[in-house]
Amino acid sequence: MNVKAYNDLIERYADIVRLGQIGSMLMWDLNTYMPPEAVDMRGDQQSLVSGIAHERLTSREMGKLLETLSKIELPLKKAAVVREIKRNHDRAASIPRHLIRELSRMEPVATGRWVKAKEKSDFSIFRDVLERFLELKKQVAEYVGYDDSPYDALIDEYEPYMKSEKLARTFGDLGGKLKPIVAKLTEVCSEYDEDKLIRKYPIEIQKVLFQSILLKMGYDMGRGRVDISAHPFTSGSLDDVRITLRYDESDLRPGLFSSIHEGGHALYEQGFLKENYMTPLAESVSLGIHESQSRLWENIVGRSRPFWEAFYPELQNAFPSMKNVSLDEFHRAINHISNTPVRVDADEVTYSMHILVRFEIEKDLVENKMEVTDIPQVWNELYRRYLGIEPKNDSLGCLQDIHWAMGAVGYFPTYTLGNLYSAQFFDAASKEIGDLEGSIGNGNLKPLLSWLRSNIHSYGKLYTADDLVKKVTGESLSEDHFINYLKKKYSNIYDIDL
Amino acid sequence: MNVKAYNDLIERYADIVRLGQIGSMLMWDLNTYMPPEAVDMRGDQQSLVSGIAHERLTSREMGKLLETLSKIELPLKKAAVVREIKRNHDRAASIPRHLIRELSRMEPVATGRWVKAKEKSDFSIFRDVLERFLELKKQVAEYVGYDDSPYDALIDEYEPYMKSEKLARTFGDLGGKLKPIVAKLTEVCSEYDEDKLIRKYPIEIQKVLFQSILLKMGYDMGRGRVDISAHPFTSGSLDDVRITLRYDESDLRPGLFSSIHEGGHALYEQGFLKENYMTPLAESVSLGIHESQSRLWENIVGRSRPFWEAFYPELQNAFPSMKNVSLDEFHRAINHISNTPVRVDADEVTYSMHILVRFEIEKDLVENKMEVTDIPQVWNELYRRYLGIEPKNDSLGCLQDIHWAMGAVGYFPTYTLGNLYSAQFFDAASKEIGDLEGSIGNGNLKPLLSWLRSNIHSYGKLYTADDLVKKVTGESLSEDHFINYLKKKYSNIYDIDL
Repeated sequence: MNVKAYNDLIERYADIVRLGQIGSMLMWDLNTYMPPEAVDMRGDQQSLVSGIAHERLTSREMGKLLETLSKIELPLKKAAVVREIKRNHDRAASIPRHLIRELSRMEPVATGRWVKAKEKSDFSIFRDVLERFLELKKQVAEYVGYDDSPYDALIDEYEPYMKSEKLARTFGDLGGKLKPIVAKLTEVCSEYDEDKLIRKYPIEIQKVLFQSILLKMGYDMGRGRVDISAHPFTSGSLDDVRITLRYDESDLRPGLFSSIHEGGHALYEQGFLKENYMTPLAESVSLGIHESQSRLWENIVGRSRPFWEAFYPELQNAFPSMKNVSLDEFHRAINHISNTPVRVDADEVTYSMHILVRFEIEKDLVENKMEVTDIPQVWNELYRRYLGIEPKNDSLGCLQDIHWAMGAVGYFPTYTLGNLYSAQFFDAASKEIGDLEGSIGNGNLKPLLSWLRSNIHSYGKLYTADDLVKKVTGESLSEDHFINYLKKKYSNIYDIDL
Repeated sequence: MNVKAYNDLIERYADIVRLGQIGSMLMWDLNTYMPPEAVDMRGDQQSLVSGIAHERLTSREMGKLLETLSKIELPLKKAAVVREIKRNHDRAASIPRHLIRELSRMEPVATGRWVKAKEKSDFSIFRDVLERFLELKKQVAEYVGYDDSPYDALIDEYEPYMKSEKLARTFGDLGGKLKPIVAKLTEVCSEYDEDKLIRKYPIEIQKVLFQSILLKMGYDMGRGRVDISAHPFTSGSLDDVRITLRYDESDLRPGLFSSIHEGGHALYEQGFLKENYMTPLAESVSLGIHESQSRLWENIVGRSRPFWEAFYPELQNAFPSMKNVSLDEFHRAINHISNTPVRVDADEVTYSMHILVRFEIEKDLVENKMEVTDIPQVWNELYRRYLGIEPKNDSLGCLQDIHWAMGAVGYFPTYTLGNLYSAQFFDAASKEIGDLEGSIGNGNLKPLLSWLRSNIHSYGKLYTADDLVKKVTGESLSEDHFINYLKKKYSNIYDIDL
């Protein structure tokens, strides 16, 4: 093989990764400590950094190196490195500069309009910019290229190698199987008091409890830290992986579950091998796989009975007012199912229904099977069909999410992919780890983390999502594991047949 | 004039400024919130950013634009912009890449050795790397070029356009005039108890008090923030100017005076005109002028009697245990003069003596009039001569400062320049503002800030330091204002003749 070309590629790519890390640092600061009036300066800094990264990724030298190397037979890991850098390069190089500039000019305009439209609950304020934005995204799809649907080219940005046809099939099956479960559970749960946990939780004590849980999960504080932001997020990678949380003094749940959720993301980012740092082998496979890690920890572990058998006494000690809430009551309250019209308030059961609505709409929009002007009507229709409810207005309906206003079309499906992958991975882990539930019940989360490390994290982008799932679970993506997980769990909690 | 070339220059320079802002952000984070194990990643990010900035500053296109524009007659402001960008470009372009790389490789090695040498108080551990580092700095001087002394080329990095001959003359006069004042004051002060202020000051209350003082000074919290770091510093510029402090729970003074000091720096960085942002007209003139702002606020204002007439009641309210310390006692305690061997512990009177020692030594080293091996002996000799004391060992003597180990040769003089400029500026301000002392005594710091804004801050680099000082004070740099300031102030405090 061509050692010099490969090393040259690796060195150039490392600088591109560093520019990404810097961009992530600037974003973290923007959302945590930055003085409010620095916002314009920061925007210029961010676009400079991403511009330089784009320039370097699409440079002629980079193109030549990749062309040379992709013609050579390489060992597995190096071949994956070249494959993934080439994927990034080809995608970035295929979109002309003027279009990239227009897209980035569009973003603040569209989000500004979206904010206004949402405030006034008037979709018509947002409509024309969304039409224009979608037009640009369709142009992107044409430049990037696709086999079957232009929507494929957009999904590919967030979930590489995934096809809309496969998504449509899996999501269709999922919707069908989920519908009776949702119907039954929302009915049963309406009998339980979901406000059981509303009381006063001093934020300083929340912080200590959540950090203690994060440490038990295996989050490495020497390579991370926890701060506060308006919306929780995980940023950075490798030796600098930071979490932000949002605390609610009257409700423990938002902070608690976002800390476990972000902890799951962070464990993934901290789980790459040092020898692979600065290459695609130290990068997440896809947003769907990333989300599988956060949801596995948040829902499958963090909302499970064994987990709270281990940690509920610590929670009660931190908040003595919880001593009159039994473990059963607590466990039910953190697994309360309801058909809210708002995605971010949804539980793990109804959540995917929200995604199906968005998936169907954005797919049809990109495939020119639907008009932007029809979004509100179709949105409400789909909510009736999937959740049996209708949003009171567009603000709580089709205007609730910022994603489309940021040009993120093809992003929503990764949330539900996260749920499906997480259940499929957890089933495989359960088979391979002797008494996984037992160890969780003893507060020992190490066996699970070490399984995730060696079966998922440590590979980085060595395998594509589909190859990884097959390798780890013996089969391709399937909704069955998730459905079975829900049935088993909620039959137990509410003592019903699902 | 060539409008296109000028605009092109401005646009290119703006990106270089942005890269500097990003570097400053990375440095701020490194010293405040960065997880400890991210230190290697951060080093790579920082050197990438400074490498890109250097590349852009020294690019052929930049060189051509500057050549074109420097031949054209331009209006005052534009001429200054071109002059200062050209100065940066010429300096950066004159030093060959291999030398820059060697210098930056040298820095961690030299600081590592310095740390060890200081720990063991053994100069010989540091000697050979310092010799090598000085050799490299002399090479820099040769590449940059100079008229009289190679030391000029090194000073110029921190104090543009300053010459060592002028420094030697001014510092010589200063030393002669300062010597009897130091002798007298250290003797008189030995009768006063300098530990008067040692007690418990809860850090949370210190924070509130210091922020309140910073706000009264005019520090804009919408464009800044205050954090904690091991060594206080000010970072950033324009709409993002951050201060860090260090708090000592048993002594109010370190936090208090570093907050006023850093506040002075920050006011300068926040004081440029929006219309000049991203050009040299929104940059400080020199480190000496920068230091004049911090020292004016810290010493001339913050250690003055009128200032504490206004703010001492607030301090006493914050710390009720201070109610048995009179204003006189407090004012004396914050103006206690002593001949310590350690520069960072020095007061405003003896401080410059520490600088004279370093100035003489580094000048002689660069001009090949002295050997590195003789530093400890010369150091101790000069301390005897200037301060009448001898350091107990090299750790408290010639190994006390990190500067030379970081390649900062020619930096020390800017500290004393700060003292001299500050007194000279303050005299001019006193003449022009009606009853400046009176307004400070009423807690009204606005007249002073607005004078500094319109006479110094708002110009950025429009004038060189010497031109600015002449314009503002009617004369060139002189040690007399500082000497007279000391004589008047300390004669009053200690009721003696100076």
